[in-house]
Amino acid sequence: MTTPTQRSLNVGLVGCGFMGRTHSNAFSAVNRFFDLPVRPVLKAVCARDSAEVQRFADQWGYESVETDWRALVARDDIDLIDIASPNDTHHEIAIAAAQAGKMVSSEKPLGRTAEESGRMVAAVEAAGVRNMVWYNYRRVPAVTLAKQLIDEGKLGRVFHYRAKFLQDWTISVDVPQGGAATWRLDAKVAGSGVTGDLLAHCIDTALWLNGGIETVSAMTETFIKERRHALTGQVEPVLIDDASAFLARFANGSLGTFEATRYARGHKALYTLEINGELASIEWDLHDLHRLAWFDHGDEGRLRGWRSIHITDADHPYMKHWWVPGLQIGYEHTFVHQAADFLASLDDGEPFHPTFREAQATDYVTDAVLRSARTERWERVATS
Amino acid sequence: MTTPTQRSLNVGLVGCGFMGRTHSNAFSAVNRFFDLPVRPVLKAVCARDSAEVQRFADQWGYESVETDWRALVARDDIDLIDIASPNDTHHEIAIAAAQAGKMVSSEKPLGRTAEESGRMVAAVEAAGVRNMVWYNYRRVPAVTLAKQLIDEGKLGRVFHYRAKFLQDWTISVDVPQGGAATWRLDAKVAGSGVTGDLLAHCIDTALWLNGGIETVSAMTETFIKERRHALTGQVEPVLIDDASAFLARFANGSLGTFEATRYARGHKALYTLEINGELASIEWDLHDLHRLAWFDHGDEGRLRGWRSIHITDADHPYMKHWWVPGLQIGYEHTFVHQAADFLASLDDGEPFHPTFREAQATDYVTDAVLRSARTERWERVATS
Amino acid sequence: MTTPTQRSLNVGLVGCGFMGRTHSNAFSAVNRFFDLPVRPVLKAVCARDSAEVQRFADQWGYESVETDWRALVARDDIDLIDIASPNDTHHEIAIAAAQAGKMVSSEKPLGRTAEESGRMVAAVEAAGVRNMVWYNYRRVPAVTLAKQLIDEGKLGRVFHYRAKFLQDWTISVDVPQGGAATWRLDAKVAGSGVTGDLLAHCIDTALWLNGGIETVSAMTETFIKERRHALTGQVEPVLIDDASAFLARFANGSLGTFEATRYARGHKALYTLEINGELASIEWDLHDLHRLAWFDHGDEGRLRGWRSIHITDADHPYMKHWWVPGLQIGYEHTFVHQAADFLASLDDGEPFHPTFREAQATDYVTDAVLRSARTERWERVATS
Amino acid sequence: MTTPTQRSLNVGLVGCGFMGRTHSNAFSAVNRFFDLPVRPVLKAVCARDSAEVQRFADQWGYESVETDWRALVARDDIDLIDIASPNDTHHEIAIAAAQAGKMVSSEKPLGRTAEESGRMVAAVEAAGVRNMVWYNYRRVPAVTLAKQLIDEGKLGRVFHYRAKFLQDWTISVDVPQGGAATWRLDAKVAGSGVTGDLLAHCIDTALWLNGGIETVSAMTETFIKERRHALTGQVEPVLIDDASAFLARFANGSLGTFEATRYARGHKALYTLEINGELASIEWDLHDLHRLAWFDHGDEGRLRGWRSIHITDADHPYMKHWWVPGLQIGYEHTFVHQAADFLASLDDGEPFHPTFREAQATDYVTDAVLRSARTERWERVATS
Repeated sequence: MTTPTQRSLNVGLVGCGFMGRTHSNAFSAVNRFFDLPVRPVLKAVCARDSAEVQRFADQWGYESVETDWRALVARDDIDLIDIASPNDTHHEIAIAAAQAGKMVSSEKPLGRTAEESGRMVAAVEAAGVRNMVWYNYRRVPAVTLAKQLIDEGKLGRVFHYRAKFLQDWTISVDVPQGGAATWRLDAKVAGSGVTGDLLAHCIDTALWLNGGIETVSAMTETFIKERRHALTGQVEPVLIDDASAFLARFANGSLGTFEATRYARGHKALYTLEINGELASIEWDLHDLHRLAWFDHGDEGRLRGWRSIHITDADHPYMKHWWVPGLQIGYEHTFVHQAADFLASLDDGEPFHPTFREAQATDYVTDAVLRSARTERWERVATS
Repeated sequence: MTTPTQRSLNVGLVGCGFMGRTHSNAFSAVNRFFDLPVRPVLKAVCARDSAEVQRFADQWGYESVETDWRALVARDDIDLIDIASPNDTHHEIAIAAAQAGKMVSSEKPLGRTAEESGRMVAAVEAAGVRNMVWYNYRRVPAVTLAKQLIDEGKLGRVFHYRAKFLQDWTISVDVPQGGAATWRLDAKVAGSGVTGDLLAHCIDTALWLNGGIETVSAMTETFIKERRHALTGQVEPVLIDDASAFLARFANGSLGTFEATRYARGHKALYTLEINGELASIEWDLHDLHRLAWFDHGDEGRLRGWRSIHITDADHPYMKHWWVPGLQIGYEHTFVHQAADFLASLDDGEPFHPTFREAQATDYVTDAVLRSARTERWERVATS
Repeated sequence: MTTPTQRSLNVGLVGCGFMGRTHSNAFSAVNRFFDLPVRPVLKAVCARDSAEVQRFADQWGYESVETDWRALVARDDIDLIDIASPNDTHHEIAIAAAQAGKMVSSEKPLGRTAEESGRMVAAVEAAGVRNMVWYNYRRVPAVTLAKQLIDEGKLGRVFHYRAKFLQDWTISVDVPQGGAATWRLDAKVAGSGVTGDLLAHCIDTALWLNGGIETVSAMTETFIKERRHALTGQVEPVLIDDASAFLARFANGSLGTFEATRYARGHKALYTLEINGELASIEWDLHDLHRLAWFDHGDEGRLRGWRSIHITDADHPYMKHWWVPGLQIGYEHTFVHQAADFLASLDDGEPFHPTFREAQATDYVTDAVLRSARTERWERVATS
Repeated sequence: MTTPTQRSLNVGLVGCGFMGRTHSNAFSAVNRFFDLPVRPVLKAVCARDSAEVQRFADQWGYESVETDWRALVARDDIDLIDIASPNDTHHEIAIAAAQAGKMVSSEKPLGRTAEESGRMVAAVEAAGVRNMVWYNYRRVPAVTLAKQLIDEGKLGRVFHYRAKFLQDWTISVDVPQGGAATWRLDAKVAGSGVTGDLLAHCIDTALWLNGGIETVSAMTETFIKERRHALTGQVEPVLIDDASAFLARFANGSLGTFEATRYARGHKALYTLEINGELASIEWDLHDLHRLAWFDHGDEGRLRGWRSIHITDADHPYMKHWWVPGLQIGYEHTFVHQAADFLASLDDGEPFHPTFREAQATDYVTDAVLRSARTERWERVATS
């Protein structure tokens, strides 16, 4: 229920997997922690399996269910179409939603290719509807603080940017490809493997923190060449990239190294980033997301050292909304922060980032990465 | 709204400070992550300031407000009285609630003294009502896993138990005592300083993991002797303990060292525990609560080392209810877990821990600690 | 061989166990890394077993051997008697050496009791000979830096001092007591168990960094009550303390907690210390001795964090004598530093610390600790 | 002096800079810690500046000095020519020494190019003299343990190899190039920048642990384009690479990423390596060289975690020769280990690694890296 000073925003969610849960949680929790002019209402959730979608609606408190996203998009009582379904569905839903005049938010990557993203950008811009992509890691408080420090010039000239995203969940040959649980291994559905799934996160953050990437040289590998397909039951060639690494040159003259894999034993979701500037350096990793490592060359010489900043104080981004100093938050809070910023932007007129157009920049880089892996040459990142 | 197979539990919360928020969040979130036969309904919240309590009710979705806890206790539509108000109010409210036949849950410490707790235990047991104390750190997944490992005998004979709870928020002489924000510095309201506030957590976990404490030798200190009282505006003697440390002998023959302070610069809420057993050792700390350090002497000699277990996998306690491996949870989740276990226990008949009686054991230890600090002698911990 | 500007100092070492090796290494290496006016000459080493002592002399380059320390003390060509034999031999050798007009250096603890130490102090002071005790941890560069920071007032008022020394090598019941390898478990030889062996280190550093300890409350425990004696072959009662912990009040008003044990599974030589001051805090541990943890409250609020200072730069104590920044030193270097400072003091007239008298202060504390463990009361630390 | 069972090996060192010190220390210390059939004698040291070389000889105990390496090579009383002078001198000295029938040891990189190394390999093989290259990091006990684990098959199929070597000492524009202190910035003397200086270490270890590298794609950068030359006093173009990164494909099918820089603020000598295998993973870094991180997928699921192995136990490589468990060694010990293994190999006939031929393999890789950086294409690593 809204308070007297709030208005409601009716949300229609597509997809009730992992990301459907994170979005639903964000919309459920956001008003308990942030004073906002808008209160999201969980109006409807849509998924193909009617029993499953009903269970999800019961659990999360959605008022209604749909089993065809076209029906959802057609409803008058929906303000925002929130897309949390597999990658191959993003563009069609987003374009239809925009054409129906809805706000649209989409999971990442925006499209399977920059060309696909481009059609989505065109649709939302033509319709003039609000749009955003859930690159949630921008709103880890430690990462947001990193952005502030960079924008304040505290790093000086940047020399190096490094990012990795390491997982180990597909090492076994018994993991199938395709289907509801493992669509991320199905090239047709996912578009690519770790490049679009994991590197996309690394790239989005990098573009945000360190500016544009101009050229890349990449290699990809598929370690397990054939897997059973969960839908067909047949052993089929694996067409996604299991691992992907690339060298990059940023527009600001700094060098980048990027790597993602699902074959790094011992790491579940180890997204790490490091930035070396003339004056200071930063490191962060997702396995301890509530900390930021900071090295300040301006410190007294004999006392210089990497600081492990416990990002739980009221003067850290977003943290005054949570508990008291010393008490850490976790993964799902990044989605709450994104929801809070998006809802606030509906009122204050400030632009919300990243928009579809901004998120397309990541797809241009992943396109170049995949292209370079094929051509075995440096490739220039397209910008339009 | 409840699902067809759920029944509701009407909650009446007393107190809308920090702990009121953690409890409200737990009751709001629990059914989204745990399949439970019972769904808490935020029926009413009670606090003395009517504007403040209304704001809180709006934010958290409570259906109604009260400004007198007696009125709350008297209501027919309340099943559970949940006490999140300052320590000096626990006993009166709990006893009245029990006498009114309500279930009762209370923040810790249960009473300001074991004698006060004893009257609360008597009341709930006489009334035969369900009762629990919010010692939330038992339900940090890493700590729960430690309990499992100990219960399975993986540590063998225990030699040492160490716990510390370090904060730094009262170092400045400008921090007042008393009032809504700083009642923890007011001996009359809080009962004691860090002994009841912080050591109580350490002791509850210790008793749970390592069994009874028989004798203690303690010292306490008040570093800043006078502070302005927030209510009277007068500079008054500080009567609480700023720091408290004690040696302990456990019934199982192991040695304990415990310390808490609000004068440890650099630590906001650093609750640490270490257990050294014949076969294995454990370490944990609240600033990285999603990790457990584990040393297993059974490992191959040259490969023995402290493992940093990232407690985010589906086979870790509670974690299958949250996200996917690698993604950490935070502080508030411990309250959600406690709510989930409590609600489940309403149906399955399993006892819920800690009850008032179990929580009183901690108060017997804190009593002995404070007594030893005065007598400057070893003191035996009472058991009744 | 000495250089033209150097004079030699003839060293006579007593004992060729673990400490005999660390001292011999220090005297061998010191002139390669420090420009000093004095060059130690390994003149003679003494131990009871003639074959063993000859092997040791060959390995370390001692010019001659003795099997009776009295013969060593009687030699005219020895300037410094360096005592690295078991605790029960320190006083007799030191007193005789002083009476013979030799400089004397001794392993710690100085005596088995402060009374025994007192006779050693009296002897060296009566003879007017240079004397020092090998409390090597003062000269870990990180610890020396801590001392500098404290002396500069960077911590402000100190509230807390914590130290632990954790080992696990006696957990097995099969470890014997007594004899060459395990004399540290023989109370007659060692004086006490972990109190004199491990806590003595913690106390020496504490007194140096934080000033005098006034009162203590202690507990000790012997977990394994009987062990085979390596010399007699008989199972005999174990008379040393396996574990020892104490609370302390320092003269500066700060609180101390100290603990040592040989029953902390997973720790080989984990000496840790923590100091919490009003303005800053320090942590250090021996398992990563080349790092100092530093928290400075003066840092900008949102960027405050514990710094891990890699103590390898030229402006860190002693480090310009070693390699280049980033390259760590190890344990034995602390003895080299002590030898360097001692040799330099022979020329520059600066006092060397700790002298016998200064080291006796530690024995007064360990005496009080052992006494308190017996009386189960707070005990005042004697000062003479 | 040798013991009755030892024979001597007369060492003639060329160069008395940083590496001259590490080698001299190794030859001085090795017999104190290792029982060996051979004792090195510091017969002569050679450097162009006669005052400096005499000072060095005095400090380290060399019996004589030379100022022309040709004179040193011509001496009959020298068994081993040990080359610790700048890179551009290695080949000429080594070839002459081999032709004179001396054993030859050389600092790394062996030559400035693989072609230059090839001539050195040919010379030592034609002469049939013992030869070795000081790739000291193979003999960090943690790295040696990693090698053992890999050889035992404990990692299974390897998917990923990562290495970095990060420094920050040339960020200032005021650092000159050329001359005694900064010849590493002079392309003519050093051959290349970080590629030959730092990546060479990473590559040598990688080839040893993970086998051959087949192809690479690289980028290099010179961030500061002009520097004053220390010898000419003129501002001249900087011709070395300040930073170098490359992607690699190993013969075993694993992917490699490598990076080195002198522009990573906050890192002095952070050499890190990570290996991800099917069954286990390894991480190590030079800033805490006495630790090995180990993740074993074979551990019980809920207890899997990265172990931080403190490499100080007697069953760790080399460690029984040093102190007692828990006490760490440092950087210089790696050279002592190499000296020990080399001296032992003189007697037992076991081959010593790496020989010149083995070390040339690294130069083939650095050649390919530099070539790829120029061509902006993947380059195949030559093997002859």
